[in-house]
Formats: sequence, structure tokens, C-alpha cells
Amino acid sequence: MRFKENIRVIGIDDAFLDDAYSILIGVILRGKHVLEGVVSSEIHIDGFDANDKIRDMIIDSTYLKQIKVIMLDGITVGGFNFVDIKLLYEETGIPVIAIMRRRPDFDKIDTALDNLAEKDKRVAIIKNCGDINAFFYNGNKIFYQMAGFDKNEDCEFVIKKFSVNSIIPEPVRIAHLIASGIAKRGRNIT
Amino acid sequence: MRFKENIRVIGIDDAFLDDAYSILIGVILRGKHVLEGVVSSEIHIDGFDANDKIRDMIIDSTYLKQIKVIMLDGITVGGFNFVDIKLLYEETGIPVIAIMRRRPDFDKIDTALDNLAEKDKRVAIIKNCGDINAFFYNGNKIFYQMAGFDKNEDCEFVIKKFSVNSIIPEPVRIAHLIASGIAKRGRNIT
Repeated sequence: MRFKENIRVIGIDDAFLDDAYSILIGVILRGKHVLEGVVSSEIHIDGFDANDKIRDMIIDSTYLKQIKVIMLDGITVGGFNFVDIKLLYEETGIPVIAIMRRRPDFDKIDTALDNLAEKDKRVAIIKNCGDINAFFYNGNKIFYQMAGFDKNEDCEFVIKKFSVNSIIPEPVRIAHLIASGIAKRGRNIT
Repeated sequence: MRFKENIRVIGIDDAFLDDAYSILIGVILRGKHVLEGVVSSEIHIDGFDANDKIRDMIIDSTYLKQIKVIMLDGITVGGFNFVDIKLLYEETGIPVIAIMRRRPDFDKIDTALDNLAEKDKRVAIIKNCGDINAFFYNGNKIFYQMAGFDKNEDCEFVIKKFSVNSIIPEPVRIAHLIASGIAKRGRNIT
């Protein structure tokens, strides 16, 4: 698999809107500097609709055919609403990267999941997402899981291409800024 | 007045959320490529709260001291909710540019305003915003109004600094993409 210099990537992140819902933001970047589009959806906090909502947000957009990679901030959105990155790849045909700043602490996650409904279903998704990989870039250790890539090198090439000043690649960093900026407003109508 | 190469600018645009409200998005860019923050608010369509909401959105943000210029897409947001750019400059201390792709058709605007409450108040804001200026850049004629700049050249310098592939400078172009991307989602909870 070869990725060109100026491919389009969608970065996805979320922010809590209230006690029940998170806003989901997708940012389409062409190369690391050109923001071409923004899509959005809403998901249940600690729910099971992350995969469907991310898939639909991408498929319903006008950018579907251009997007070459989906980038996530880890494999959860909206609290513990897990994204099955293998399933997301199968349903969209687009390779998926989940970036992490730290190696996930599975003991801690396992304990947290005791408080949630359908723990087994959540654990099955985590296992299906595959190994945690790591590499060094610009003096930082970056962790990631991937689906739909032939080789780790292909995935790491894309991460490097979209990283600028932050450990987190631009599409995910910008999706985070937008989600936070929207969620904070509440409904401040006077 | 001198503006440095990598100043921070906030670009503002809106999109209709429903029949009554528009979402207002502010995008803080450092230079034309680094997105540093997103803020948001809501305004009444055809209302009179644009100035207050934009002012508060900026003053309440953590970016206030860094923002050197406010950029708008014309002097209206949320339909005919006019922004008095002179007042916005006075209340924030930050120079304001309203960019336009075309020279506004004041006869057409005047007729449209006949259907709205408090026409006189709206016309007074339009008049207070001052002359329509124009200059050529990259083969395009760009129109603008300004407040808080000593010279037209200073204002045009900033517009050029933040223009990349579009007639519309990056902060306003990105604010437009975000506002549209958010407004389109509605509340698609299933």
C-alpha cells in the first residue's frame, strides 16, 4: 500500500455535550495544512453507537471517495463508547488508525468496565482491535492500533505526514479543538 | 500600526441551526496554517445580538490577549443580524475586517429590510460601518470594510497574509466550514 504526499485524512474526536450525549466531529485535511471539510454527529455516552455513527458520518459526506485514512484518538469516543476499528475498516473500506499518547492500562479499563452494562461486549471490541504498536518520532513515543494497513510502516508514514507541532496528528488535534469549542457553548441564548 | 508575520486572527462565520437561531463559530489561527482554538455561540436569526455575542465569545475566551484582528464574512451574521464593526472594535480593542466577495447591493438590502422590524436601527448600523474598500489580490477583486486600522494598507496586508487558495482568508473560510458542518447534523440521535 502506498500513500501519496497530499492524501486526505479524516480525524475524529468528541466532547461531552451533556450527561447523555457527546458531539462527534470529523475534520477532513488534505495534507497537514489544508482543512477541506467538517462533519458532525452525536453519540450516546458509554453507548454502543460509535461505529455506526462514524461510518454514517463518513459515508453520508461528500468526501467519502477522497478520504484515504480515518484517524481516531484511541478506540473510545463518548466515554466508553468503543470503536471496533476492524469493523469500521470493513464497513467503510478505509484504513483506520487509533493514536494514543500512552499505552492503555488494561487493568484499569477492566475495573472501570465493571460499572457499565454489557462488559463482555466491550471487552470483545477491545480484543478485536488488535495489538498496541509503538514507535518513536521527533523524540516522542507514539502508540497506535491499526486496521486495513498492510504494514506498520505504512501506518507510521501517515502518522508522521500529519504531525506538526504536537504528538497528536493534525486531523485529530483539530477535531479535538472543534469538539471542545462547540461543546462548551451549551445553549447560551439570552 | 504594524502586524507581525505570525499574528493570531479570529475568523467568524455562522450557519442556520433552525428557524430561530444560528450557530456562531470563531476560529483562532496563528499565521495562516496553525489552528489554535475554536469558540462558539448562538445568535437570533435577524436579531440584534450579533455584536454582544461576538464580543463575549472573544472576551470570555482564553485567547483574548493574543488576538490581533477580528475577521468577518461581511457585516451580517444570522440573516440580517448586523455587526457594527466600529462598536465591536471599541468594545474589544481589536481591529475588525469585514471581507466581501462582491460589492454589497444597497438597494437590494434596503428592500429586504422593509420586511424586518426596526429597519432604521439596521440602516444606522450599516452606515456606521463606513466605506466599502476594494483591492486586487491574486487576480481577484476583494471588497472590505474596516474598523480600528490606521491605514487601508495595514488591513490589506493582513488579508493577504491569511489568504491561501481562496478569495476568502483562511480564518473565515475555516469558520464557515465548521459552522456548516455542525449545523447540518441537527440532532440525529437514534
